[in-house]
Amino acid sequence: MDSRTNAEDCLGWAATDPSGVLSPYKFSRRPIGSDDVSIKITHCGVCYADVIWSRNMHGDSMYPLVPGHEIAGVVREVGSNVQRFKVGDQVGVGTYVSTCRDCEYCNDGFEVQCEKGAVSTFNGIDVDGTVTKGGYSSFIVVHERYCFKIPNNYPLASAAPLLCAGITVYTPMVRHNMNQPGKSLGVIGLGGLGHMAVKFGKAFGLNVTVFSTSISKKDEALKLLGADKFVISSDQEQMKGLSKSLDFIVDTASGDHPFDPYMSLLKTAGTYVLVGFPSEVKFSPASLNLGMKTFAGSITGGTKMIQEMLDFCAAQEIYPQIEVIPIQYATEALERLVKRDVKYRFVIDIENSLK
Amino acid sequence: MDSRTNAEDCLGWAATDPSGVLSPYKFSRRPIGSDDVSIKITHCGVCYADVIWSRNMHGDSMYPLVPGHEIAGVVREVGSNVQRFKVGDQVGVGTYVSTCRDCEYCNDGFEVQCEKGAVSTFNGIDVDGTVTKGGYSSFIVVHERYCFKIPNNYPLASAAPLLCAGITVYTPMVRHNMNQPGKSLGVIGLGGLGHMAVKFGKAFGLNVTVFSTSISKKDEALKLLGADKFVISSDQEQMKGLSKSLDFIVDTASGDHPFDPYMSLLKTAGTYVLVGFPSEVKFSPASLNLGMKTFAGSITGGTKMIQEMLDFCAAQEIYPQIEVIPIQYATEALERLVKRDVKYRFVIDIENSLK
Repeated sequence: MDSRTNAEDCLGWAATDPSGVLSPYKFSRRPIGSDDVSIKITHCGVCYADVIWSRNMHGDSMYPLVPGHEIAGVVREVGSNVQRFKVGDQVGVGTYVSTCRDCEYCNDGFEVQCEKGAVSTFNGIDVDGTVTKGGYSSFIVVHERYCFKIPNNYPLASAAPLLCAGITVYTPMVRHNMNQPGKSLGVIGLGGLGHMAVKFGKAFGLNVTVFSTSISKKDEALKLLGADKFVISSDQEQMKGLSKSLDFIVDTASGDHPFDPYMSLLKTAGTYVLVGFPSEVKFSPASLNLGMKTFAGSITGGTKMIQEMLDFCAAQEIYPQIEVIPIQYATEALERLVKRDVKYRFVIDIENSLK
Repeated sequence: MDSRTNAEDCLGWAATDPSGVLSPYKFSRRPIGSDDVSIKITHCGVCYADVIWSRNMHGDSMYPLVPGHEIAGVVREVGSNVQRFKVGDQVGVGTYVSTCRDCEYCNDGFEVQCEKGAVSTFNGIDVDGTVTKGGYSSFIVVHERYCFKIPNNYPLASAAPLLCAGITVYTPMVRHNMNQPGKSLGVIGLGGLGHMAVKFGKAFGLNVTVFSTSISKKDEALKLLGADKFVISSDQEQMKGLSKSLDFIVDTASGDHPFDPYMSLLKTAGTYVLVGFPSEVKFSPASLNLGMKTFAGSITGGTKMIQEMLDFCAAQEIYPQIEVIPIQYATEALERLVKRDVKYRFVIDIENSLK
């Protein structure tokens, strides 16, 4: 079959209503353009965003909705202008598939902050007016700019979660100069994002303390992920002992939680990075001002940094902890994500299960 | 009279209870030590901190309490080791008069963040165990490290407010790289701190927009202080028009106010600096994360930056707007500060009125 046709040749799994149930769905992808890459998807990570939009939690879901923005696969065809990729290359696609390519941020390689808005990989309005469909599908066609080289030695299943969870913590960690060996990092929350922050922190040579509400994560945090310390955040004694001890904090918790107790753990001029989306941020000005601290936010990252991160993970042999599942398990996986019952990222084996 | 004696030779004005009333009060200063400078105070700025502690608003005031931490004067005597100053020099003292001089922050010239805590210029516990007394007084004895050279051509009355109001905005503006000509700055609140932020902003070559709740400040903001734009923060139309237009915001407002509307005015990767102390900071994570913005706090500054600022103000001819008052007006001045009825800083003419 020629991918240049517009037949309903793409097989996906979609949500058709906010129930949370996904089911098989056939649709068409756009014909490959001269700057496009067509990718046979082998793996797709399961992100909390998939829960949010498949269940219409933000009220803007367009059904049928094919989730998935942690996409890894192999190039199956390239457009006539494409130089960076060739058929057979390992590649990835992240949370956006188009931007204006003309603004200050696009020109700086920070496309996620595009002035005209980045087109989301699913449930976004593409340049041709169609609704984008994500990686819970057999293939995808994207402009080569939003396509990344996954080094040959790096497993595609492991690469998938890097495209959202990985880059979401990597970007602010690099932007806020956390790659300084010997400094100290606190990681709040130990899910898909948090466990990657621990891994990057160790790769950067940091002393890493994990803060969690659940003692059940202690052993894995220390032994499997390599954290230096594990603290139950409700243990006031332990928290007090860490007062003014951390250079950096990466807060990946999306549930509501107090901020002042964590901010008190930062050293003078320390930096607190928020990547989660609790319902609000609230703290005392004294927590911030007295130690001239910085509280910064972030979302995923630009194309330049995504490629840098993929190369870094391959060179440093950093791999997310994943649980590989078949597409038939997607509905249950999303349900388990809601219950935070995952260690630490589900990755759908598209290649072997989506048929 | 020999200042080396410990007689009650210092005349000040003190609060003796939380009523807000100040009255004359005689006390002794410590004998001058080998590293000390004794300063004849000519001027002292009136800071909101003077209201807070004279009225025991934080519950830790020690009476009789002599306020004042924006001190300018002339050296009248130096200790045997003092090389940086000589009798007759114009000097200033700010919000702290001692630190450990041994920690990381002291060694970096960031003494205000001293690990052992900086000793406040008034109502602090000095190294000898006595309670420090501030600049509403005829002279002061301080270690030379906490004493700053005020350039000869710079009026002492104008220098006084730089030692707290000035440095409080100058420090974060420099730390967060706001001295980039052509960039844009929003200043929230137009009191002692805010009006200095406008002046520094213009000296740094920034396009400055003032946000105020009161239209009455418009003419002065534009004509007297040199701001480029004046916006009434309740005017939603005007606020909307400035969406994503500012590189920096300096928020000097200590009254409670919403943060999200101002954060929406920052460009991507913009920086919001808080120097005021509202009762809490509260905003939506989306306001911070989506544009990968930074929210930073600050208090006054270290000795290195204080001297740099004084030299900068002299070189650039930056002068605070002051209303010079006699010490006998101190009680009323504090009362007017509470009512925000001041343009923009009261400075007490100690030299000519305290007798």
